[in-house]
Amino acid sequence: MAGSTFGRLFQVTTWGESHGKGIGVVVDGCPAGLPLTEEDIQIYLDRRKPGQSQFTTKRNEADQVEILSGVFEGKTTGTPISLMVHNTDQRSRDYGDIATYYRPGHADYTFDEKYGFRDYRGGGRSSGRETIGRVAAGAIAAKVLKEFGIELRAYTTAIGPVQIDRALFDFEESLRNPVAMPDVQAAEEAQNFLRHCIKNQDSAGGIVECEITGVPAGIGDPVFEKLDANLAKAVLSIGAVKGFEIGDGFAAATSRGSANNDAFAMDGINVKKETNHSGGTLGGISDGSTIVFRAAFKPTPSISRTQKTVNKDGEDIEISVHGRHDPIIVPRAVVVVECMASLTLLDLMMTGMSARLDRMKDFYNEN
Amino acid sequence: MAGSTFGRLFQVTTWGESHGKGIGVVVDGCPAGLPLTEEDIQIYLDRRKPGQSQFTTKRNEADQVEILSGVFEGKTTGTPISLMVHNTDQRSRDYGDIATYYRPGHADYTFDEKYGFRDYRGGGRSSGRETIGRVAAGAIAAKVLKEFGIELRAYTTAIGPVQIDRALFDFEESLRNPVAMPDVQAAEEAQNFLRHCIKNQDSAGGIVECEITGVPAGIGDPVFEKLDANLAKAVLSIGAVKGFEIGDGFAAATSRGSANNDAFAMDGINVKKETNHSGGTLGGISDGSTIVFRAAFKPTPSISRTQKTVNKDGEDIEISVHGRHDPIIVPRAVVVVECMASLTLLDLMMTGMSARLDRMKDFYNEN
Amino acid sequence: MAGSTFGRLFQVTTWGESHGKGIGVVVDGCPAGLPLTEEDIQIYLDRRKPGQSQFTTKRNEADQVEILSGVFEGKTTGTPISLMVHNTDQRSRDYGDIATYYRPGHADYTFDEKYGFRDYRGGGRSSGRETIGRVAAGAIAAKVLKEFGIELRAYTTAIGPVQIDRALFDFEESLRNPVAMPDVQAAEEAQNFLRHCIKNQDSAGGIVECEITGVPAGIGDPVFEKLDANLAKAVLSIGAVKGFEIGDGFAAATSRGSANNDAFAMDGINVKKETNHSGGTLGGISDGSTIVFRAAFKPTPSISRTQKTVNKDGEDIEISVHGRHDPIIVPRAVVVVECMASLTLLDLMMTGMSARLDRMKDFYNEN
Amino acid sequence: MAGSTFGRLFQVTTWGESHGKGIGVVVDGCPAGLPLTEEDIQIYLDRRKPGQSQFTTKRNEADQVEILSGVFEGKTTGTPISLMVHNTDQRSRDYGDIATYYRPGHADYTFDEKYGFRDYRGGGRSSGRETIGRVAAGAIAAKVLKEFGIELRAYTTAIGPVQIDRALFDFEESLRNPVAMPDVQAAEEAQNFLRHCIKNQDSAGGIVECEITGVPAGIGDPVFEKLDANLAKAVLSIGAVKGFEIGDGFAAATSRGSANNDAFAMDGINVKKETNHSGGTLGGISDGSTIVFRAAFKPTPSISRTQKTVNKDGEDIEISVHGRHDPIIVPRAVVVVECMASLTLLDLMMTGMSARLDRMKDFYNEN
Repeated sequence: MAGSTFGRLFQVTTWGESHGKGIGVVVDGCPAGLPLTEEDIQIYLDRRKPGQSQFTTKRNEADQVEILSGVFEGKTTGTPISLMVHNTDQRSRDYGDIATYYRPGHADYTFDEKYGFRDYRGGGRSSGRETIGRVAAGAIAAKVLKEFGIELRAYTTAIGPVQIDRALFDFEESLRNPVAMPDVQAAEEAQNFLRHCIKNQDSAGGIVECEITGVPAGIGDPVFEKLDANLAKAVLSIGAVKGFEIGDGFAAATSRGSANNDAFAMDGINVKKETNHSGGTLGGISDGSTIVFRAAFKPTPSISRTQKTVNKDGEDIEISVHGRHDPIIVPRAVVVVECMASLTLLDLMMTGMSARLDRMKDFYNEN
Repeated sequence: MAGSTFGRLFQVTTWGESHGKGIGVVVDGCPAGLPLTEEDIQIYLDRRKPGQSQFTTKRNEADQVEILSGVFEGKTTGTPISLMVHNTDQRSRDYGDIATYYRPGHADYTFDEKYGFRDYRGGGRSSGRETIGRVAAGAIAAKVLKEFGIELRAYTTAIGPVQIDRALFDFEESLRNPVAMPDVQAAEEAQNFLRHCIKNQDSAGGIVECEITGVPAGIGDPVFEKLDANLAKAVLSIGAVKGFEIGDGFAAATSRGSANNDAFAMDGINVKKETNHSGGTLGGISDGSTIVFRAAFKPTPSISRTQKTVNKDGEDIEISVHGRHDPIIVPRAVVVVECMASLTLLDLMMTGMSARLDRMKDFYNEN
Repeated sequence: MAGSTFGRLFQVTTWGESHGKGIGVVVDGCPAGLPLTEEDIQIYLDRRKPGQSQFTTKRNEADQVEILSGVFEGKTTGTPISLMVHNTDQRSRDYGDIATYYRPGHADYTFDEKYGFRDYRGGGRSSGRETIGRVAAGAIAAKVLKEFGIELRAYTTAIGPVQIDRALFDFEESLRNPVAMPDVQAAEEAQNFLRHCIKNQDSAGGIVECEITGVPAGIGDPVFEKLDANLAKAVLSIGAVKGFEIGDGFAAATSRGSANNDAFAMDGINVKKETNHSGGTLGGISDGSTIVFRAAFKPTPSISRTQKTVNKDGEDIEISVHGRHDPIIVPRAVVVVECMASLTLLDLMMTGMSARLDRMKDFYNEN
Repeated sequence: MAGSTFGRLFQVTTWGESHGKGIGVVVDGCPAGLPLTEEDIQIYLDRRKPGQSQFTTKRNEADQVEILSGVFEGKTTGTPISLMVHNTDQRSRDYGDIATYYRPGHADYTFDEKYGFRDYRGGGRSSGRETIGRVAAGAIAAKVLKEFGIELRAYTTAIGPVQIDRALFDFEESLRNPVAMPDVQAAEEAQNFLRHCIKNQDSAGGIVECEITGVPAGIGDPVFEKLDANLAKAVLSIGAVKGFEIGDGFAAATSRGSANNDAFAMDGINVKKETNHSGGTLGGISDGSTIVFRAAFKPTPSISRTQKTVNKDGEDIEISVHGRHDPIIVPRAVVVVECMASLTLLDLMMTGMSARLDRMKDFYNEN
């Protein structure tokens, strides 16, 4: 199992390396009848595209997506949708040095231990370019979710030590600044901090938050297939993520039951929660309120400072990683987080349709 | 999909409700030839048994496990191991009230939304008793892992605002005090804090940390089936968990690449890492160092204080949840965390055996 | 993977050996709200119970099923339904001889090769008693299918050389005679043939046919998850089955396109097929006509005649298998075939609910 | 679930339609270190290529495969191998007529019922071209299997009424004649029969047999994941297959235990079977002898004779299907059967590596 498939009914399989012919994804199980164009997907890919600010790699990739199958007369047919992005900027430099040693913080060593050798060019399969497949597939999932009135939005809440001020929260602002922060002042500070990192040949991490609105109550399963458990897996499967929390998350551990419980109250004929400490799930199942979760990203491991490591001959050496690397990947990861959440949620909505006999009977009798 | 199955090759399926005939689990795919007795499993179940201190429910359950299949002449046969624990203390009280309203912080409302009705007795399937199946299966997984020299140990690092002092860390201490804290002083403070909570009809949360030693490098898959992603799902699938982090976790987000990267160095003929900010994985694959992760638990939602909620008739009401509830579940959850980690790790060790052609050829040629 | 789980959304996990404490099954994913009693399941188990005629083993098992979880106030809750049948007639004889050699036609040798040793008592996990779990789960699936107007019926079409005469087909007759043949004359001949087999210390095989009516068009998926492919796997997973065919099956190989194609014609406002050579599927998807398939069973391998084999010491020996064995298992297997078909069909109906965006939107908007 | 993924650890996902941009497959989980070139795969694709005799469609496709990922320095890396074949001969004719009615024997009607509409050009996803992905993936699986000394060979045993004479069996002959029959005389008769079919605007079916040698004992799992059950599913998932049998198959149903049981005997220090009625499995697990199974193919449904059907307006009409169709697909399907068997067997060899604790310990200790 190379582990490149995600989802049970909305099943996504990604492929491709940093310096191979391209990156792609097969989306199997997308409901038939969704209007879909390459433009729908390109919008999402453009959000993760490199070269859009001084804080992202200067690698120059168009990352143009091509739909190879599964769409006919402008609509999905229910059969596999194959998407591909050609790699264009495969700079012909010598990777021989990287081949011989293990970069700290990267998967070089673990790939070698697991597979006996590795495609060392640009990180190979462990490159951030692998997320292109996730984003392309997530764009489709997000488009399906929109049909149900479900919207996702993610943004940066922290970069290094700089955190947003919740009182100044302005989502639209996050679309304007290069660090995707919904707080104009924090965005400014974060950029200063990043410039400082670059100057010091160093890198930074941060936190991405994602909100999902419009999710009906009842999505997710008890026990092992909880909505939050699946979101955690989805998010931790993104390269640099080291932590996940939903609702109050780690802060809930220091709270008390009386403060942490969300009281129910009637809102006309609907049940609502007066607060949302839970982050939109109870017992692993969506409760109808906004789903809110956060992902912690470690600093980019590629830094040009001198670092200690070992080579394949078993010698202690010193290296400095040059090349076109992001001093921070958080702003470009925002759309990746959003897409992984879309994939997770849609799949659980699909697997959950047979939970009740009465509704299943309605479904088939209306057929 | 009711979502009660975990794992691909070491596949665990749990069943049972709080007030049904019992709780059980089927372990399918356990390697043949493992010596296994009921006692091996009972030791783990006893660690999560209620009634062992003033901070756990007074529900009095023996939780005696019975092996129903899959073991012959003292060894596993490779066929499904069915385990059952009978429910004995099903106090015959009236649950009629709970049936009519939704307890804040519980899954009552979401189960009703998902399934149309629910087994309301004692939380039904969302009861903490569901974890009996996980622990029984995890005990078997842990026994298999021990054969490879892999050991897991979990403990409490925080209860409410009380945190352990890392300088005073003493794992053995965690086995002695009722809050499972590896710091005698913190354990004392935590107990005082809990007494305070009980007096105030309130409850507390906390943090559990788990260490896994002896894991060879190369376990876990790139992309979606990363070891850390699977651990996150496993841990978030435990009822009250709201957050997961591996290695430095959320703290990594505030660090810099130069500080967060773990340098490699030779240790004789072996590669080792000089630090372990990563928590034992790189690129989702174990790197040979200790795996360290943490889980954040919310405060127990059942509190006897008056709370606002709604009933099924759509009326705003006030309730107070009486019964035999833990003011904190963290100490009893320690073994659950450990067991979920065992299940996750063993499954990935099994699925990973075919990663390399040379080793697969060795395997079959030696057959 | 011990391979004891079947299905994706209606997921069935069986456990238990011939001479262990019992046989059981966990049904995970059954839609909530189905009225279900032990009697519903017992009716199916009684159809496979031994000791009902001179042609079945004299092993005397009550095979009483017990529902251990997943049903509340007479209805399924959507959580796992655990079912168990205790083994009662575990005759305390010495199995020492069977332990030392490999019975021809049985799985003794292959279990030893796979697992290193085996539970040799009564065939262990490869015993026909394993099908109890399938039948118990299949009874539930069949009850769900009935809610959609889907009915299954299976019967014997051949025993050894004796075949039914299609012109005399009478399904009710199959419920009356001990060989389950829907042709009174063939049933008589078959019984004579079986008496002849018994007298000669020999055994016989046969063919079971199954019809499924009321299946809406559109069930099953293209490519690998075809309805017929899944039925084939389900049926071949029954111990003694050596062949599967749907519709005209092997006879289709000798036909011509002009004869084998089923013409479509209007039947009022509905599309129907004028013939059903296809057996109810086209391209792996149900076409709205009756699904018809057949399973070929080999003769029971346990015969008391002397046979040549080898023992574990690597010696050629002669054995004769005594004990309480069926000279034919076909009549008792009829209900097993029916149940495996129920499990297959229901699972595909559940996974297929998200095939179309318009219908998925209807489903969630009506929620 | 569009059902386009096959296998658990050697996981294959196919995509593409007859008249889309191309056909492809992603192979996820191939062991690292296998030498692999496009030529290795092309050899297999050439065996199913159209236009090689008067009995195959005149559609002129080069079917040149391209490796897009997963191979580095001539060897598989353990990451997904993406393969693509461009569609080149997409004749620009009007498919408007096919769009409006349902061809008998095809999946037109069932796709419309399932998905609401369909890509009607050349059969879309239900086209025989979908098997390109299977063959490309199967070529890789076969190459892995060869490393273990496992060889597969398939051939035609019957075309319409013409059957091979087992006494004249000559495998090499099957590689020379256009009907893939291992009997020169039957091949001649079969060709005459096919010419007769073509003249009568009709089509024929047939039977493919596959032998697998070198399979170690112990592959396949008891209960639902039997080797034969998985082969049956794999084979029935090929478009026109209506039946599957292993070993003596349907003939076993008319045999007796004394004749059908394969006696074990010592062959030096090895256990062997004196006969192979079982076809190489016992209890669903390989027994070390040759695996032999057969697949029955229906006649090609596309015939130019006039046929009755209905159109989408609900009218009874008459049609004749023109175009470039094979009067028989059996000879081209031989390699498809072989490839599906390779995929099935390899996957079970991979999942089976953790069956025994002792061997699993050897594996990890040698690591």
